[in-house]
Amino acid sequence: MSDEPCCDVAHLGHVEIFTNKPEESLDFFVNVYGLTESGREGDSVYLRAFDDYEYHTLKLTASDTTGVGHIGYRCSSKAALERRVAVIEEMGCGKGWIDGDLGHGRAYQFTDPDGHLFELYYDTREYTAPADEQPALKNIAQRYHGRGVCVRRIDHLNLLARDVSAIREFMTKALGSRVTELIQLDNGRLGGCWFTVNNKSYDIAYTEDHANAQGRFHHVTYAVDQREDVLRAADIFLENGVFIETGPHKHAIQGTFFLYVYEPAGNRVEVANAGARLILRPDWKPVIWTEKERKKGQAWGLQTIASFHTHGTPQVGAD
Amino acid sequence: MSDEPCCDVAHLGHVEIFTNKPEESLDFFVNVYGLTESGREGDSVYLRAFDDYEYHTLKLTASDTTGVGHIGYRCSSKAALERRVAVIEEMGCGKGWIDGDLGHGRAYQFTDPDGHLFELYYDTREYTAPADEQPALKNIAQRYHGRGVCVRRIDHLNLLARDVSAIREFMTKALGSRVTELIQLDNGRLGGCWFTVNNKSYDIAYTEDHANAQGRFHHVTYAVDQREDVLRAADIFLENGVFIETGPHKHAIQGTFFLYVYEPAGNRVEVANAGARLILRPDWKPVIWTEKERKKGQAWGLQTIASFHTHGTPQVGAD
Amino acid sequence: MSDEPCCDVAHLGHVEIFTNKPEESLDFFVNVYGLTESGREGDSVYLRAFDDYEYHTLKLTASDTTGVGHIGYRCSSKAALERRVAVIEEMGCGKGWIDGDLGHGRAYQFTDPDGHLFELYYDTREYTAPADEQPALKNIAQRYHGRGVCVRRIDHLNLLARDVSAIREFMTKALGSRVTELIQLDNGRLGGCWFTVNNKSYDIAYTEDHANAQGRFHHVTYAVDQREDVLRAADIFLENGVFIETGPHKHAIQGTFFLYVYEPAGNRVEVANAGARLILRPDWKPVIWTEKERKKGQAWGLQTIASFHTHGTPQVGAD
Amino acid sequence: MSDEPCCDVAHLGHVEIFTNKPEESLDFFVNVYGLTESGREGDSVYLRAFDDYEYHTLKLTASDTTGVGHIGYRCSSKAALERRVAVIEEMGCGKGWIDGDLGHGRAYQFTDPDGHLFELYYDTREYTAPADEQPALKNIAQRYHGRGVCVRRIDHLNLLARDVSAIREFMTKALGSRVTELIQLDNGRLGGCWFTVNNKSYDIAYTEDHANAQGRFHHVTYAVDQREDVLRAADIFLENGVFIETGPHKHAIQGTFFLYVYEPAGNRVEVANAGARLILRPDWKPVIWTEKERKKGQAWGLQTIASFHTHGTPQVGAD
Repeated sequence: MSDEPCCDVAHLGHVEIFTNKPEESLDFFVNVYGLTESGREGDSVYLRAFDDYEYHTLKLTASDTTGVGHIGYRCSSKAALERRVAVIEEMGCGKGWIDGDLGHGRAYQFTDPDGHLFELYYDTREYTAPADEQPALKNIAQRYHGRGVCVRRIDHLNLLARDVSAIREFMTKALGSRVTELIQLDNGRLGGCWFTVNNKSYDIAYTEDHANAQGRFHHVTYAVDQREDVLRAADIFLENGVFIETGPHKHAIQGTFFLYVYEPAGNRVEVANAGARLILRPDWKPVIWTEKERKKGQAWGLQTIASFHTHGTPQVGAD
Repeated sequence: MSDEPCCDVAHLGHVEIFTNKPEESLDFFVNVYGLTESGREGDSVYLRAFDDYEYHTLKLTASDTTGVGHIGYRCSSKAALERRVAVIEEMGCGKGWIDGDLGHGRAYQFTDPDGHLFELYYDTREYTAPADEQPALKNIAQRYHGRGVCVRRIDHLNLLARDVSAIREFMTKALGSRVTELIQLDNGRLGGCWFTVNNKSYDIAYTEDHANAQGRFHHVTYAVDQREDVLRAADIFLENGVFIETGPHKHAIQGTFFLYVYEPAGNRVEVANAGARLILRPDWKPVIWTEKERKKGQAWGLQTIASFHTHGTPQVGAD
Repeated sequence: MSDEPCCDVAHLGHVEIFTNKPEESLDFFVNVYGLTESGREGDSVYLRAFDDYEYHTLKLTASDTTGVGHIGYRCSSKAALERRVAVIEEMGCGKGWIDGDLGHGRAYQFTDPDGHLFELYYDTREYTAPADEQPALKNIAQRYHGRGVCVRRIDHLNLLARDVSAIREFMTKALGSRVTELIQLDNGRLGGCWFTVNNKSYDIAYTEDHANAQGRFHHVTYAVDQREDVLRAADIFLENGVFIETGPHKHAIQGTFFLYVYEPAGNRVEVANAGARLILRPDWKPVIWTEKERKKGQAWGLQTIASFHTHGTPQVGAD
Repeated sequence: MSDEPCCDVAHLGHVEIFTNKPEESLDFFVNVYGLTESGREGDSVYLRAFDDYEYHTLKLTASDTTGVGHIGYRCSSKAALERRVAVIEEMGCGKGWIDGDLGHGRAYQFTDPDGHLFELYYDTREYTAPADEQPALKNIAQRYHGRGVCVRRIDHLNLLARDVSAIREFMTKALGSRVTELIQLDNGRLGGCWFTVNNKSYDIAYTEDHANAQGRFHHVTYAVDQREDVLRAADIFLENGVFIETGPHKHAIQGTFFLYVYEPAGNRVEVANAGARLILRPDWKPVIWTEKERKKGQAWGLQTIASFHTHGTPQVGAD
């Protein structure tokens, strides 16, 4: 691998999640979480946060199951997209080109070793604010509407996988992602791995799935501007009967301030704030956490709740 | 110019500023602003914020004048550095290679059209925390010491220049920077221009110098994690007799929450928070502000104080 | 006057303001400011913040004018009310008993030297949350609905008066209020005076009216829990086209963090946070500010905007 | 009991705690917690927060044990003090008058049913800031020094008692305190009871001691202005090796945002923020929490850590 950071992939574009309670999930995402609907087609509703520039960052699809449908990353340019496609095809993970959807143009599909479906694209559809959503200041995509948690933008997602080491090999090669932090288990396996394609500390993380399943989903996260927004979100979730799984607290890993809830269909959703922390260093070396260090709990000592290690979607067994 | 974003330059590395009150300036930066001294050599003290990974991000040099000494940017790799040097040499702006200093290895010097001195480097010296500065959590460079404003990392600088349009041409070519926002004056000139080499909304800005001078300095900024940290900083500055020029308030341009003060030698210093706003879009189009829009003042209507348009260092005339 | 603090008056109860744009004002207070309607009768709508326990704290009355209708204070007990009435009657300021309204029982009316109308009561009507406004936690009056600024409770009001010294004599005697801070002008007059009946730093303030008028209104204020809520309020006001007069900033007097806007009829409204500052000291001596000190501006140097000294409701002349 | 709120006691004055690690405890309170030393005498150091107006609010006494020494409340006036003394003497709980100490004048001592030692006083010694502690703004007692957590003022304490019902009877009568919230256990006993003498939601709380002991101490709390200050405090404690027991999180009871740590001698100390919530209502009815409701955990679901129910000082057994 080159010693030069790869810039072919610009940012996490969107996440498609399945819901078997489409009306309740939509109400959660729009009225409680604070996303805005751009449009809908077939079984899917296209949603985004107020400062997401694309037509959508969340594709909410009605289904008889839950979990993740696919993950889309936007490339830096047409040429960058072609470069990535060539690499992925050579890796043997590619599925081929598809036409886009309401949200973006043609995209190249591929799967990770655990069976999660990804796509890369460059041609996207921009969000154009209608008159009643025009921002007072022109440098944000939509007005700060203040509805619900009013998250600012999509931040990252976390997927469950049976072999995180295999994921590490795959992700760094296929997307050219950098590993920012990881959990090294005593048994030699990776308990978790955090990746970034840009200066955000991570846009995707994988954690080891202990269930006998594959392709499962841990959570999707949108970012708010201040930690106080996360605290405020807790009260909004509480008053709206949303199940708060854990938080607010600060992660030891990455230091982000988090709050995890379950949306009505059971998919885990997070609200987070990373402060001013960015990975600007080009030769960043992954931070390695040992099992012993993980036992200390989160940054200020909160023990990670058991369900955080077991609950994923689709649910498996008593999870 | 290629339609592909340039990734050769990773991030703003450091800023050297001149002080004709070295003891007072050092006391300000260490005890009030919250930087930590890494070392000193000759007339210079090398300082950094608690999560700056490099040996220094601020080089404070005793002098009989004030203003900026030089600005250093770190490249993504040795090869990226070579590519930039080739471009700059061809532009005719290069001054040549120099040995590094306490903070970094060999660097290539060049000047912008207004005479500000820059350098590009890749080989850097990493900060290694001594025992009493070790962080409790290993993913930050130094413990959160809590002293003074306790800024997290260097964020950006702002230079004054007589011809911001010439700067725009230069910066986009020499560093491969992207323009994120700019002020278009009625007279066709640029009043200000904001540039980034990565996902931060800006790492350098230039504003038109109305004084008959060149190579002047407007301000340097470090970032804090929360807007409440900026408010707290205001009380810390107040109690420490630091001159608060303007703020706290929110800029219309870039939307950052700011607070400007003068350090003892008169150089303007800022504390800022950008929330979760980043420029992740690869094909971001510069936001253009007109003179009419600028007259509205800052985000919530604060009129920009007159000194913000005139005061720079070194001071000129009655500025 | 006794050296014992007077406890007869428990807290500021409600403020009635006149609006000549009743629909727009109501929309502002409910959807932008975040008050909830308890009911309406005649020309008045009864509003309160989510943690106000009484039926209303703001009585919004449609009128052909603007400004304040009356100010209501709740007494600590029936006996305390009787004591106050006796004192006020003896002062010659009483107007007599009235039946209550939708919000409270019988009340005793009186006027201050500038002609503002006050009432004292004890029997009040409690707010009972309907099913869809029930809080998740039983120790707040209504759920944290998160709508608009979502202020927590009424905090204080500020009235304009021609002779603040006369007001000082009156208020300390009639309500048994304590003076917490005041502005002593060079000409011997009081520029402003802040009063409290309890531990809040103030529930009413008077500032000298420079217009040839009496009985005018400066502003009413509701409190939010955090300074970040005030910053958030600024964005909500901005996006909703509300005129922001000044702020956010911190007052030198009282140290409260403020933001002033005009509601659609022109009455000035504030959002404020006082942190953990309370006047618990029983023998608190008023803090006296001189004209010279006031010239320094607000806490961090913001010069008080001219309109803050002239604009009041009803408007007079070019104010 | 009269239906009029009692105003004889103005506020919690100070708490004396015993430490068997006086140097470490002093370092914690001054350098980490952010209190300032006013003076020392004998085995005691007199400390206060930056906006405490009295000479001290914490008396730190070197001893061979830990826990609480005594609790002092300041009365509203000399006459109020005499009234309280008369009531307490008639209750048979009085111990008699003592001369004051460095911090205050003559005081009347008494004990609660569990044996905790209290004193009431009126004559106090005011804190006078030396030149280097003068505040920039005259309405706070001392400059905002910014050291450590930099708590603003004493807030409350929590004592362990074997019979909280007996405490309730005692406290409401002896101090004229109001009960704001309480925990009603299924067995008919009170699990906890929160009292206030003024508008703060509580200045003292008692929780049932499950150990075979009496006169034990649960915690003392100082208030900070913002919830972000509590989050910041967590990082300061973490970096200073202070044991964080639980938090940050929001209590269901009283809704305060909390963080509990152990100072070096094992006494529990809290940092808290209550937002704008005050008990202004004169006829406030206690909020009653059932055991079933308490099982839900804290406001956002955090289960109360076991040690919170068992650890007190002096420590008993394996506590």
